[in-house]
Formats: sequence, structure tokens, C-alpha cells
Amino acid sequence: MKFSLLAAFIFAAVANFVRAEEGMFPISEIGGLSLADKGLRLTAEEVFNADQTCLVDGICKVNGCTGSFVSPRGLIITNHHCAYRAIQSSSSTTDDYLRDGFQAKSLGDEIPAKGYTVRITESFQDISNQVLSVITPEMSYMERTKAIEQCQKELEKAAEEKHVGQRAEVAEMFAGKTYVLFLYTYIKDVRLVFAPPASVGNFGGEVDNWEWPRHTGDFSFMRAYVAPDGSTAEYSKDNVPYQPKRFIRVEPKGVDEGDFVMLIGYPGRTARHKTASFLKYEQNVRLPYVVDLYQWQIEQMQQAGKEDRAIALKHSSRMKSLANVEKRSRGQLKGLVRKNIVATRAEAEAELQSFINSDDDRREKYGALLKDIAGVYAEMEANRHELDIENIRSASRLMYFAFTIYDAAVERQKADVERETPYMDRNFDLTRRRLALAVEDYHPPTDRIILQEMLRRVRASGGKTQDIADQLPAEDSLAELYAATSLGSAEVVQACHDKTPEQLAAMDDPAISAIIRLYPKYLELREQSKSREGKLDQLYGELVTVKQEFLKQNFVPDANSTLRLTYGHVKGYSPEDAVYKSPITTLGGAVAKATGVAPFVLPPSIVEKHAQRDFGSFVHPKLKDVPTGILYDTDTTGGNSGSPILNHEGRLVGVNFDRAFEATINDFAWNEAYSRSIGVDIRYALWITGNVFGANHLLKEMGVE
Amino acid sequence: MKFSLLAAFIFAAVANFVRAEEGMFPISEIGGLSLADKGLRLTAEEVFNADQTCLVDGICKVNGCTGSFVSPRGLIITNHHCAYRAIQSSSSTTDDYLRDGFQAKSLGDEIPAKGYTVRITESFQDISNQVLSVITPEMSYMERTKAIEQCQKELEKAAEEKHVGQRAEVAEMFAGKTYVLFLYTYIKDVRLVFAPPASVGNFGGEVDNWEWPRHTGDFSFMRAYVAPDGSTAEYSKDNVPYQPKRFIRVEPKGVDEGDFVMLIGYPGRTARHKTASFLKYEQNVRLPYVVDLYQWQIEQMQQAGKEDRAIALKHSSRMKSLANVEKRSRGQLKGLVRKNIVATRAEAEAELQSFINSDDDRREKYGALLKDIAGVYAEMEANRHELDIENIRSASRLMYFAFTIYDAAVERQKADVERETPYMDRNFDLTRRRLALAVEDYHPPTDRIILQEMLRRVRASGGKTQDIADQLPAEDSLAELYAATSLGSAEVVQACHDKTPEQLAAMDDPAISAIIRLYPKYLELREQSKSREGKLDQLYGELVTVKQEFLKQNFVPDANSTLRLTYGHVKGYSPEDAVYKSPITTLGGAVAKATGVAPFVLPPSIVEKHAQRDFGSFVHPKLKDVPTGILYDTDTTGGNSGSPILNHEGRLVGVNFDRAFEATINDFAWNEAYSRSIGVDIRYALWITGNVFGANHLLKEMGVE
Repeated sequence: MKFSLLAAFIFAAVANFVRAEEGMFPISEIGGLSLADKGLRLTAEEVFNADQTCLVDGICKVNGCTGSFVSPRGLIITNHHCAYRAIQSSSSTTDDYLRDGFQAKSLGDEIPAKGYTVRITESFQDISNQVLSVITPEMSYMERTKAIEQCQKELEKAAEEKHVGQRAEVAEMFAGKTYVLFLYTYIKDVRLVFAPPASVGNFGGEVDNWEWPRHTGDFSFMRAYVAPDGSTAEYSKDNVPYQPKRFIRVEPKGVDEGDFVMLIGYPGRTARHKTASFLKYEQNVRLPYVVDLYQWQIEQMQQAGKEDRAIALKHSSRMKSLANVEKRSRGQLKGLVRKNIVATRAEAEAELQSFINSDDDRREKYGALLKDIAGVYAEMEANRHELDIENIRSASRLMYFAFTIYDAAVERQKADVERETPYMDRNFDLTRRRLALAVEDYHPPTDRIILQEMLRRVRASGGKTQDIADQLPAEDSLAELYAATSLGSAEVVQACHDKTPEQLAAMDDPAISAIIRLYPKYLELREQSKSREGKLDQLYGELVTVKQEFLKQNFVPDANSTLRLTYGHVKGYSPEDAVYKSPITTLGGAVAKATGVAPFVLPPSIVEKHAQRDFGSFVHPKLKDVPTGILYDTDTTGGNSGSPILNHEGRLVGVNFDRAFEATINDFAWNEAYSRSIGVDIRYALWITGNVFGANHLLKEMGVE
Repeated sequence: MKFSLLAAFIFAAVANFVRAEEGMFPISEIGGLSLADKGLRLTAEEVFNADQTCLVDGICKVNGCTGSFVSPRGLIITNHHCAYRAIQSSSSTTDDYLRDGFQAKSLGDEIPAKGYTVRITESFQDISNQVLSVITPEMSYMERTKAIEQCQKELEKAAEEKHVGQRAEVAEMFAGKTYVLFLYTYIKDVRLVFAPPASVGNFGGEVDNWEWPRHTGDFSFMRAYVAPDGSTAEYSKDNVPYQPKRFIRVEPKGVDEGDFVMLIGYPGRTARHKTASFLKYEQNVRLPYVVDLYQWQIEQMQQAGKEDRAIALKHSSRMKSLANVEKRSRGQLKGLVRKNIVATRAEAEAELQSFINSDDDRREKYGALLKDIAGVYAEMEANRHELDIENIRSASRLMYFAFTIYDAAVERQKADVERETPYMDRNFDLTRRRLALAVEDYHPPTDRIILQEMLRRVRASGGKTQDIADQLPAEDSLAELYAATSLGSAEVVQACHDKTPEQLAAMDDPAISAIIRLYPKYLELREQSKSREGKLDQLYGELVTVKQEFLKQNFVPDANSTLRLTYGHVKGYSPEDAVYKSPITTLGGAVAKATGVAPFVLPPSIVEKHAQRDFGSFVHPKLKDVPTGILYDTDTTGGNSGSPILNHEGRLVGVNFDRAFEATINDFAWNEAYSRSIGVDIRYALWITGNVFGANHLLKEMGVE
């Protein structure tokens, strides 16, 4: 691995954070964390070394999740919910791998996971100066955003041309301040190896999601493949298992309460550095909107799939992800209110404002900063009806297909680096593949109900949406629209990608025609969003600068899907007065929960083995049972799904998959009392894989006898 | 107090139960419980003595709840939810005591609690032989029930004639086997003295109901009044406070984890001696029915009261009791499934059946017993549509008024002991008063929606309800029916009580006319129910006999609203894997829960006092906070609401008001692991009454300085 150091002010941040176990640290920061004092028996260099193979080389990104290589033959352990899309799309009502689980008896049986990619971080480099050099003070906010975007794209393109087969990505570490170019090994042939049945992998379903205690066996195995010469390649049956530079050793003895643990992974997004005005917008507008809309959508999908497993399968992946976000949003809303987070942040900002006001120069420069940022969110709040307009083309799959097709056609007439990111040559293949997968899940009757509701919502906004009301499809035209559109066919959709905007218009497909009428509005919203982004980028950049001056400390950047490390201990917590939750659950707890009513159904073989105490070697010495879930106080967010839980020797003792309900608020504010993450205990994963489903060859491959 | 001993076989039961803390023991059993070994520092005779004043004399029945006299002037402490009806009916949108709380500054300010009575157990006597002597083998099951009923009524009447001013009631201890005649001092002038605002007394509302941890200040004070000569009398301003023979001393120091506690009270109903077939009926039919119907009714009432506080007040008491039963039923359903209670009881019965079958004589006598009992429940299951028919006249208030009026008129033409119990001379006053109260809460628009739904449900049963389908009001006649009926007026309803059935028919009131058409069906259902009851009575009597033979032990009778004692310790529990709940909650916990969103709103004065740590002398020495709720493993059920929680010296340390969610199943099966009851800590009650609301005269009256 080759790494250039990050900007010095990030590096300097660490000393300020060792007091608590908060922090999703850029991996380069490990040296400053004194992990030996916390319990780690590896040196910082054994975990991360810019010049040599190290532990971090065994960790990869699997789509939006994290995974660990657990054998020299590219075997990856990640979550069941991370492999869910692959399991779903290879399932049918006859081979229902979602319901029954899947097990490849040999390499040849492994199923291509359509739409999946695996990345391994190879190097990174601070490019802030290059990026910021393209900005001039005369630029409008929109021009600013576009200039930065274009510079990033050019740098990425150049890097990829230089490092053939690798993937380059610029990440913004601090908005408007710091940019880092990451290079990834990029694997496009990923296959499904083993998945437990959903009754294990999704045990407790949405009821238990975001909850502790937990008994979900949320793990599965995938495998990365490359061309016989080791280069990255699209799926081919001639491909061979990828040999990672390093793989993570599995520790079948697991962990115990109080033990040190460390997670490495790709956390998605946090908002720790955002203002009270942002949090207020989340609390008052966006989160309630999401909860309301998603609950309604889920209900429609549930209704549609009630009597028909094929329809239920079509909706399953999308429903799961909507439900996940819906419940997380509810947890965040509850946390924002209960923990009084907006007020707490506003108080901190009031102190900052006093500091700013205490010096004339500073006041001149930063005096209006917080107010200006608040102004952007106030504008978004005033234009909340835009959420409905935006959601027409995401809630309705048909509108999403039509929009993507048309938008692509328009954008692909531009020069490569001027296009929106998904339509650049380097991304367009994946965009197409994902669209094709979405078409497979399209169910017109449900989609029509959803589109109709979105149109109703937009129209209900009255005056504010008057400018596009006439452009919306009439309610009584929907039956015909759905009957007449040809975009339900994956072939048609793929064929559309070769057409120009004019050719698409000439198709006279009612879904495409509807989008063409709305397209000017979407362009307007896009420009407006870039303009807001440009403004916030600049303002937040200044905010970090003045906050540093005030607090005389530096900060760990918010999560941004780049490689991070977090550490902590296996630890219970008290979510409320008179309640204590201990940090290890057991198979006995799962059996006690298994009422036989979904989502609490366990395969009979598990209940039987439990009754017979047939635990193999995977029994917890004190609990005298197979441990199922573990709880720890590391700092995680979405994207950490599938992250290895590593013990003091860097061995894998579990797979991270969720947070406690109180910890959903983690995205906004970390807290020692309630920030707890949830993982599946490796002993449960091994027991399920080997003892219950007999895939002992996988245990052997991982070196577990 | 004067008591005759209960039947010997109940007495003998005790030795079998001292191992666990199960048991709602008839008070006469205290001598056998070895309570000194458990921690009690009073002798059994100090608690209960048939010949002298004792602790039990300080405890009373307040309608369906329990209360304690806590001063020599008839001051009673009970639950807020027990006084709820009184608080509601004296509230208006201008004097909203439900919302704001109530405090009488002097005796003269105390408000008559309409419909409330207080009873104090004076004596009891086993009358099984007298009751059972009226049965002959030739009787049909219906005749059997009627004969027993009539015998009971005659004995009650005779006892009341002998003991003027007292109330007599025969209680069935073991169905078909043991009957006891209880005599009560009967107080009809009860007044409201102090109630905290609902934000305290019902803090957490239905969300927290049946849940631990709990922070509800569910207490209030009432007072019993009698005529100046000490005799029981209807309300009069000349009445004077009742002087109880004994009052319970309040212990302002409270209790701590692990301490002995004892509850005395009037638990309502349990079904520990019922069969698996009964539990199956509950699980499959009755409980799901209740949950479904009540949820729907609650929703209608919520909807109706959303924008109008006056309508919300009208519905509040009824909604609260529906919601209470609905959630308890959900808890019971969950418990029945999770704890596998039907199967467990069926296994025990299979063993009993083997024992029965192992002897020819026994087989001859008891062989079909379990099957015959199951047959009754199977018949009830097959006729589940009867639930809908029955609920027409309970869910709809208007139909309830009309039915009660007409039924009373029919019944009151019979000789007194031949009438249904509510219409006997000794009961009819109370029946009328309660009906008048219900009329006050009548809200025609909601009621019409409910009646319409009940009619729809009955019609939806198809063939099974064909016989009465034609008798039901037509759906399109309902608007007119509600417009034309005069039963919305309390005066009209009271006037109706003087009319004969013919005069009622001649009124041509559409609600009465509707009931007259349905009346033959209701009579049929009543006879049928008496017939089933007779059959079950006889069979259950035999079941107890053969179970005693088999198990060589005796049993504590199921709860039946008569005076019982239960004991245990302040104790936490683990409701599920990895969760432990400790047994004392704090004011800090209440404040943390108080989001400001109903039902989690605390009066600002409480939040302030908490912030200032203004706890007076009511602080828990270890928790350094005011304790709010306590949890203990005594054996309670509905009717124990308001029961004193007594410490080892018989002093009052709290007021019982609920059970943990897992303990709702308590009604069917007690279990050491999850049977936990919930009380309000006396320190919280005293702090709220004195420190927060300034009613220090009440603390003084109770001897708390």
C-alpha cells in the first residue's frame, strides 16, 4: 500500500480524541491513537503501513458495504444484508435462496452477483491545493461547484489512465477545504458463495433492525474473481479467485465482555461538523418526510406481495432498504428530540459566535457565517415541496428508468468530464447494469399506485408547484401510461442507451414523454442544488477554520465512504433509567424469541441443535451457549456494514452489521452512553455455516478446523 | 373482623406454595405462610385477626380497585386510574382536573365521586353446603346455574336484612365446589380529595402502560363519608368523614431493592385452574377479537376528540379502559405464544389423563372430563360470531342504554331474587347511577360509527347470523335513528326506569325499538351462557377433585375479587436475553423521558425542581434522586390496582398499579422469572403531593412531617 500523508491539520487532530472512543479515523492516523494502551497487541505499522503489506490490505469495499478477505483465495465475509441484492436477484420461486439460503458446493457453483464490485484501497494522496486552485473569487456558487467537480473528474481520469485497471476517486474530507485522491483495485467479478436462509440472516427482520439485544445471523460469504493473469475483468467463467495481498485470520474463540475491538471499514456519511440549522432542517423537514413517505411505500409493497411470493421477491430488496432508512430516520428523530441535540449544538455555536464577535477583524470575516449557513437550510425548508418533485423520479421506478435513460442521452452528448458522474465513460457500465437490475424488480401495479400518490402530493403543494403542475401526467392517463410504456422490458431499456435525446423523444413512449416534459424542472433543481452545495462548501470551509481558531484543536473529518478505523471495547449500556443491556446475546435468546411468527422463525434444525446442546466448539465458556450477537462502543455508521470486528491480535471475531436504536443518532453526534454498534459473533457464523448447514469446506478454507 | 374459616382443603393448600412467591392467598391463610421467614416483622395475628382490629381493617375496595385508609379521618390512597372516572366526570373544559390536577383545600371542597362506593370486608363464612344442596342430578345445566344463582341471592338478601347497612356477597372460590359469603361495610359517599395532573398520574399513557421501567405517579386521594351517626348513607353535605377501625401508617422512608413487601387487596380474576382448551380459546378467539375490536374503537374515539377537548373528555375514561384491556390482551397473546403456555398446560393434562385412565373406576368417573370441558370451548369457538352480537350492546353506548332500560323493565316485573343481579332492589340504585354516568359521556357521532361497524360485522358473519339479520337496524336508517332517539338525555333515561316494557315499546323510540327486536336473541344468548356456565361449573368442580387426588396437594383458589394477600420482594428481572431491568426508577428517568410530546410531558415545576435537586426528604439514599416506581415479584392481577405495598412492619411504602408486560400472562400462569408487579413509590407520591403541589395538610393528616 502506498499512501501520501493527509493534510497536516487532520493528522494533528488525533491527540484531541484519545480521551473518548469517538472517531472514525482516517487510517493514516493510527500512529497517534496509542492503541497499545487500549489493548491492541499489534504495532500501528502492522495494521497500516504505507510501504508494506499490512492488515488493512485484507479489507475491501463491497458496493456500499465493507468486507474482509478471509482466505488466500479471495473469500470475503460480509453481511447477509450486503449480499441481499445478489441473493434476491438469483432467487426465484423455485430456487428461493432468500428463503432457503444458498451454498455453493464448489467454485463452479458460485453465482455471479450482478451489479456487485469489490474495491481495495491501494493509495491516497492529498490534492487539496490542486482542487482549490481552480476556484476564483468571481465565481458564482454554481460555477464554483462545477469547477471543483470538473477538476476532480479530470484528476480521477488522469489517475486511472496512469494506473490501468484501478479506480480513482476524489473524496472531500472537509467541505471546501481538503480533498484526497484515493486509488482502488477494482474487481468486477464478484460471486455469491454462501448465504444462510433469511430466517437466520434476517432473523427479527424490521422489528429487530436497529435494536439490541439482537440475534440476527447477518453474515454471508462472497468471492472476488479476476482474469487468469490477475487483472481485473468482467465476469467470465475463465476467471480465477483473486489472491488478496493479505487475508484476515478468523478467530474461532471469539471475544468476551470488556475485550478490545477495532473495526476497519468504509463508513458512509456523518454530519458531526454540520450546524444546528442543518440539524433543525433534518428534524423538522427531511426526516419526518422520509418516515412518512417510506412508511407509505412499504405498506403498498407489503400489500402487493401478500399473496404472491414472486411479487414479494421483486419488492424484497427495495422494501428492506426503505424499511432500514425509515427506522433509522425514526431513531434519529427520536434521538434529536430526546437528546436535545439541536439546542446543544446551538449553544456551542452561540459560544463560537461570541468568540467571532469579540474581535473586529474576525467579526468582519466570519460574523455572518452561521446566519448564512442557516439561510441555505431555511431556503430548503421553504422549498420543501421540491422533495416531492425529486421523489417522483425515485419513488416511481418507471419514472426513474425514464429519467435515467433520457438524462444519460442528454449528458452523453457532452465531453466526458463535463457529464454528470454516473454518465462518464468510466462509470456508465455500472450505471447501466444497476438500471437493468432495477428493471427486473419492476412491478407495474405497485409502481402505478406510488406514482399516482407522488403526483397527488406534488399537486397538493398548491401554488408552489404551479409552474410544473401542467407538465405532470394527468391522473386519469396513468392506466394508459403503464399499459403503453415499453420500459418494463430490460432489453428495451438497454437499447434506449444507444439513442440520442431526439430518438428517445421520437419513440413516443408515454413514460419518456412524461419525463421530457419534466426535464427542464429537474435541470433547474440540479443547478439550484449545485449552487447551494457551492455556497455550503465555502461556508463550511470557513466554519472549520474559525472553529479551529476558537477551540484550538483539530477535528476528525466526517465519514465520506473512505477507509477509516475505529476502536473500542465489548460493552453493554443503559439505554434508559432502570434498564441495562449486556453485550453478548446467545442462541438460547434466539430460540426464546422464535415464536414461529415471521420475522421470528428459526430453521427447525437450529432449534433442535440448541435443544441437544450440539454447539460444536463454538460455545461461550461462561454463557455455556453459542454467542450470537456482540455489542461494542466503536464509532460506526452505514457503510461499516460488513466491517470486520478485529481483536487485539487483528483477528476476526465478528462482522459488524448494525447499531443500537439510540445510536442511530450517532450520525449527528457521538455519545459514550449510547453509541453502540452491533455485530454477529464469528462463533455463530461458523456454527451456522459448518455445524448447521454443513459447509465445512469453507471453515477449512478459512483455516478453522 | 369476624371470619369463619374457609373450607379445610383451601386451608391445607398453603404448605404447597411456600416454595415460590406465587399465590393470591385468602387472607385466612396467612398463618400457614411463615411470613416471618420471608422478612415480615408483624405476627400473622397483627395482620389478620378474626376477633380483633388488625391491619386488614385498614384496607378497602374502591369500586373495582383497592384502597388504603391512611388517616383516622377516612382518607384513602388509591391509584389515579382508579379515581379517573371521578376526576373525569367532575372535569369540564374550564375546570379541567384531568389535565390540571385537583386539590381540595378543605373538606368542604372535596368533590362527590359519582358512582363510587367503598367496601370494607367485615366477615366471611363458608356456605358451600347450603349452595350445593340446591342442586339435583336431574337438573339441566341451565337449571343448575339458575338454582345456584337464586340460592346465592337469597342468602345475600337474608344476610343484608340481618346486618342492616352492610353489603353481602357470595363468592365462588372453586367453581362448582366452594362458596363463601362475604359481608362488607358499604360506603356510598366517596369524594375526590387530591389528584395529580394526568401528566403525572398518567405519565407515559398507553405507551408505558403495562411496561417497566415506569415513571407514572399513579396515585390519588379520596375520602369516605358516612352519616353523622356513623351509618352508611348516600351523599349529603351533612355527612362526616368515616373513621376506619384501623388506618395504614405511611412510611416516608420507602423501601429498597431486596426488601420484603406484602400486598393486600381485591384481585379480580385469574384462570390458573382453567384447562388448555380454555387457554386455546383465549389465544385463538377471544383475545385476538378484543385486540382487533378495541383498537378500532380507540381509533374512532381518538379521531373524534382530536380537535375538541370537550369530546376528548367525554371519551377519555372509556378510551383509557379499552386501551388498558387491549394492551393487556396483546401482552397475554404474546405471552401465551412465547411461553408456550397452551402446550405446557396440555402436557400437564396429558399426565392427569394417564392417571385417570390408570384406574377403571376413575376412568369411568372422570375419563371424559377434559374432553367435555374442551367441548364447551369448541362450541364457543364455533359460535364466535356471538361475540359480535354481544358487542352491539356494549360497544355502542346507545344500544347499551336501550338494552339496560328495557332489560331492567322486563326483569323488574319478576320477584326480586329471580331478577338478573343488577336489577335486584339492593343493586338497582347503583345500576341506575352508573347508567346515568355513561349517558353523560355519550357522543352520538362516534357512537353511530361504532354501531354501524358492529352491524357490518354481524352481517359479515353470513349464514350464522341469518336468524337475526332481519332484526338489525338497516344501515341507512342509522342517521335517522340517532337523530330521533331521546336516550341521549339523562333525564329521559332516568324517567324510563319507571316504565313497564309495554310503556317503553309505546314510546316508539327507535333505539328502544331496535333493542326490542333483538331482545329475544339476547335472551337466547343469556340462557345459553347460563347453560355453558352450569356445565363448566360442574366439570371444573370434578376437575379440582381429581387433580387433588393426582397431585396429592391442594390449591389456592383463582382470584375472584375477594380479599387476598400476596407477598414477595423488591426485585428486578430479565425479560429477555441480554436485558436486565432493575427494580427502582427515579425522577431523573422521568425527566429524561419527558420529550414534551404526549404522553411524555411533565409539569414544568417538576422538571425545575429536579434540575434544582429540590427533593425535600424524599430522596433515595443510594440513587440520590426521588424514586418514582418500584418493581416486586408479588402475585397480582386487575383489582389489585391501588393495593397498599406494605413493608416488613406493615407500613405503606407504595401503591400498586400495574404489572410488567410479560406479567400480563400472570392471569393464566405465574412464573418467578417474569411475574412482576409495579407500584408508585410512596416517596414520589408524597413529594408530588407536598413539595410540588403544596398539599402539605394531607401529609400532616397522614402523620408525615
